Order: sequence, then structure tokens, then C-alpha cells
Amino acid sequence: MRREIAEQGEAVARTLEEVRRRAEQVREAIAGRRRILFVARGSSDNAAVYGRYLVETRLGLPAALAAPSVATHYHARLDLSDTLVVSISQSGRTEEIVEVQRWAAEQGAATIAISNDAESPLATEADVPLTTQAGVERAVPATKSYTSQVAAVAAMVATLESGAVLWPLLERAPAELTRLESAEEGVAAAVDALVSSDETLVTGRGLAFGTALEVALKLEETCLRPVRGLSYADLRHGPIAVVGPGLTAIVVAAQDGPMLGALVGLTRDLTERGARVLAVGGDATLAGASAYHLPGPDLPEPLAPLGLIVPAQLVVESLARTLGLDPDAPRGLSKVTTTDPS
Amino acid sequence: MRREIAEQGEAVARTLEEVRRRAEQVREAIAGRRRILFVARGSSDNAAVYGRYLVETRLGLPAALAAPSVATHYHARLDLSDTLVVSISQSGRTEEIVEVQRWAAEQGAATIAISNDAESPLATEADVPLTTQAGVERAVPATKSYTSQVAAVAAMVATLESGAVLWPLLERAPAELTRLESAEEGVAAAVDALVSSDETLVTGRGLAFGTALEVALKLEETCLRPVRGLSYADLRHGPIAVVGPGLTAIVVAAQDGPMLGALVGLTRDLTERGARVLAVGGDATLAGASAYHLPGPDLPEPLAPLGLIVPAQLVVESLARTLGLDPDAPRGLSKVTTTDPS
Repeated sequence: MRREIAEQGEAVARTLEEVRRRAEQVREAIAGRRRILFVARGSSDNAAVYGRYLVETRLGLPAALAAPSVATHYHARLDLSDTLVVSISQSGRTEEIVEVQRWAAEQGAATIAISNDAESPLATEADVPLTTQAGVERAVPATKSYTSQVAAVAAMVATLESGAVLWPLLERAPAELTRLESAEEGVAAAVDALVSSDETLVTGRGLAFGTALEVALKLEETCLRPVRGLSYADLRHGPIAVVGPGLTAIVVAAQDGPMLGALVGLTRDLTERGARVLAVGGDATLAGASAYHLPGPDLPEPLAPLGLIVPAQLVVESLARTLGLDPDAPRGLSKVTTTDPS
Repeated sequence: MRREIAEQGEAVARTLEEVRRRAEQVREAIAGRRRILFVARGSSDNAAVYGRYLVETRLGLPAALAAPSVATHYHARLDLSDTLVVSISQSGRTEEIVEVQRWAAEQGAATIAISNDAESPLATEADVPLTTQAGVERAVPATKSYTSQVAAVAAMVATLESGAVLWPLLERAPAELTRLESAEEGVAAAVDALVSSDETLVTGRGLAFGTALEVALKLEETCLRPVRGLSYADLRHGPIAVVGPGLTAIVVAAQDGPMLGALVGLTRDLTERGARVLAVGGDATLAGASAYHLPGPDLPEPLAPLGLIVPAQLVVESLARTLGLDPDAPRGLSKVTTTDPS
């Protein structure tokens, strides 16, 4: 896992190149379509959550995440003739996702498959395969395959956006990832805080919400800790009632954008309730309001999720070792996921 | 809270009547629209999750849940001219939801508002107000307002469905709720199990997934316990790795339908990993596979969510008292929610 964390800058650079090569096909796939539907599970689903916000805010197209069981168990008939379906799966072989993509095509959707294997059924059956260039990922917890998916989603949106605003900014991402891969600032202190924590939750909002969910999932599956990933709004709306001493709250934020002020306010509120806050990313104000801080990437909010996960991955890997666990092969997980035996 | 739990059968009966009166307007609202977008937070959001599955499986229309910040913070411009927006808020005064409904209308959407107050801004500004008839709800945790929202969603879909299959079944729901409101079977044992539990998670799938989320939210906000609500698939896909002794897993299921077999399998798997399973609903096989069981409503899967929550509400109310908490006014919650101060 440690080595694969360090390969992300290069994996993302190659993935951006790959999407650029497919730009014409991506534009053709969206022609005549009015909305985008993402299909994914697990870490890929967290990349899709990011994609949903990016599509709506940058392209002005309604976007959503599919409920796979509507296809696989209820066999619903939906008119998807106005829809571009974007399926995301590292292996491209997760049966449920392949089945949903096949179903979507039958319902009239155009299909783009983001997978790490050009020979997989997901890739070969899609109208447009966007193959992430992460190389073989041996550790079970997804790291470079996840950031490559996030990069592919960003590059897809950058390709579809009028004005080509995002592409020049995207070019900065690989160097930022490479820089963060060896950044040690705050990592040891964050690991200490989490080791002594009774309970952990992770929160974020908007474009960085998917990153918060991915931090929660990584902590849970790699460090075998129950961790809740909650949107800012859902936390404010109820569960904040159970926040108190013993809790470590991880607040994930971009360095700018319309969410930052509210997340600083939330950090102060959580601290007043006795929780310890570990901020990932954000600006100097957020860092100042938090007990612990992991600096994030120097990327604007729409692209922050490409790099924001990296310092958290370093903490997860180190925390697993501190707890005497093997971060490369956590108990109970396998690399190709089969959601449903029934 | 106890008294309001007991008023649900009547509240649902009145709510069904109200939607029936508005049937013509509901049909007019959907004319020319190709998809449905739900807007909600908290318990109302759990009713919307049910609505999303019901719309896709019964009406064959794509459905999704809005990401409110896309409107309120990113001020995105989306073409919603093909969309019916259904906003759900008990008070009809949650500012964020009112703002998103206003935004959706500006983007061309038709709007239906499900609220418990016909005079609220959400209701008065909508094309069609569907007013739930729960009466004044004094306890902070939503009970009768939630089941009335679920009933309104079901009645809306029943109204839009061709063939009128659901309406006759819906008529059975009020009596089922009234029956469950005073059912004691399994409640005391479930409370004992939860009192001695280190950790709790709630899971479900498909049409009953929203109910699982609502059980988790009620436990968390009323009993001040951190509880995770996870879809069957998301649990299988990773977090099941952290399941072990000390965990109580609440499995929520309808008495029939394509999800039941997999949930029985999950129950056996969780039990093998050392967790104690409390089944809510399901059939005799699920009850037999579980350590604890709360019988659910005698309603087919598409309508099970109207009654499935009731035995869980009884457990939550009793658990709160057992823990020395006031179920009517949990710490840190207020009745009209204001998600975002910024």
C-alpha cells in the first residue's frame, strides 16, 4: 500500500493522457444526452459522488448515482435514452456493475466505462472505455486506482466543459500528488490522535464530500475501525447530538470555495462539544481552528479531490501498522468484489 | 413520542385521503416530465430514499435525490424542464429545502411539496401541495410525520401508476399501523440486546433501505448512540470486515420480495462473525435465523416501509427511557432544522 500511494502522481499523469486521447469519443458519447448517471460501489462509488457534484456544477447537467438493485433485483424498465451512464470499477469485473451497465445500454443509455483493465467486460462492452493507468494494484485497499478514477472523472468533465478552463489546472495535479506522497507534516500526530480515539467520524461537503466518504471507508476497511462518513448537512441535521469527548472528527475541505466557511464553523462547534478535530486540507483558518492538521493540495476546489485523499492515505497506512495490522491485506476483503451471492 | 407513535394509523389514513383528493393535480404535475427528483434532509430524506426506489420500480421513471448544495452553495444552472421535483419537509419551513424548491422551479421543474403544514412556504410555493395529516407533532424525533410522508409518497406513486394496483393495498396500511402500534412482541428483548451492545449498525436493501436509514437515525438522535446505517451492498463491499462480537446488527426486511433471500444469508453471515442480529420484519426464515425479532407489517414489499418502522420506533422510545434519556426532547435537536448557518 505504501509503495502504491507513492505511485499516484505518475498514475494520474498517465490517466489524464489516456482521457485526452479519447476526447473525441467522449464528446460523441454525450451528444444528445441530457443527464449523467454514475454506477459504482465502494471506493469507485466515492469517485462517483465527486463526479456527480462536478458534472452538475461544471456542466449544468443533472447527475445522479444509480441504485444498482433497481436493475439487478427489480429488473425495472427505465427510459435512459436521454442518459449517459458512467460506470466505475477498478477491476471492470465486478459482476453487479457489469450487469447494470448492460441493463443501462438495453434501456437506451450511452455508456462510458472507467476501469483499470482495458480487457475487462466493463471496458470492452462500453461505448467508450476510459482506462485508468494505475498499473497493477496489489494492496487490497484502493489507492492509486481510486485517484486515477477521480482523475478520469475530472478529465472527462474537463473534456465536456465549454471553454477548457479545467484542463490547464488539471495539468498541475500530478506534481501536487507526487509532492503530497512524501509529505510527512502532521501524519504522525494524526496517527497518535486516532490511536487514542474512542470513535471517529469523517465529514465534508459538496465537491469534497466523496473524499470524506473515501477517508471513512479506508479507515474502516484498512484499520478495522467503525467509522461514519457523514455529509456536513446530515451531521448538522441530527447526529451532531452524539458528538462529545472521545470522538475524533475528521473534517475534509478544499483550500477555497463556498463550503470552507461553514466547515470552519463546524470545526469550532465540534471542538466546543469536546471532540478533537483533524482537518484535512482547507486553509490557514481551518488549520488554526483544528487540533490536528494535514495540509492538502494546492488545487482549486473542483480539482482538490485528486490530491486531498493522499495525506489521509498516509495516515491510514501508518495507523494500520501502529495497530499491528497488515495494510496490504486487511481481514475480510478481496480485490474483486462480488456484492451479491443471491 | 409514545403517544405520537400510537397516532400513526390514523395520521396515515387521513394522509391517504388527502392525496386522493389531489389526484388530478398530481397527474397534471407529471405531464410531460420524464424524471423525479426528491429534495429532503434527515427523516424526510429517508422517506425520499424509499420514494426513489418506488418511483423507479413502479413508474419506470428515473428518480434521484438532489444534492441541495448544488443549488444553495454552487448556484448551478441545470435544465430541469423534464423534471418533477418532490420536496419533503415536516415543517415546510426548513430554509434550505424551500430554497432548493424555489431554485428548481426557476430551472423549469414542476414541484410537489410534501409537508405537514399547508400554510408553510414550501406548501404555498409548490405547484401541488400534498399536506400530510399528522397533526401537531410535539416530540422532536419524527414518528407520525415520517410515516405520513412515506404514505404520501406511496399514494403519489399509486396515483401515477397505470392500473391502480397499489391503491387497494394501500388501504390496508392504516389498520396494519394501528395493530403494530400496540404490538409488544420482541420489544423488551430488543431493548435488552441494544442496552448491552457495544456497537450497532442497521442494514437493509432496495425498497426497505430508507427504513433502515430511519431506524439508524432514530436510534442515534433519540438514544444518543452512534449508529451506522448501511445498504446491504455497501456493508458486503467492505465494512463487513469490522463486524465481530459486541456488535448488534439490525436487519430490516419486507416479508417478501427479491431482497429477502440475500438478507437471510447476510443474517447468517453476521451471526457467524459473532454479531447478534435483530431482524425487523421479514418472514419466518429470517426470524429463525436471527437472535432477536420484531414482527413487521403484513404488507407487500412496495408498501412495507409504511409499517416496518413502527416496531423499531417502539424499541427506540423504550431504549431511551431505559438509558435515562427523554425521548421527547433529545439533547442537541430542534424541531425545525436549519442546516446551514453560512
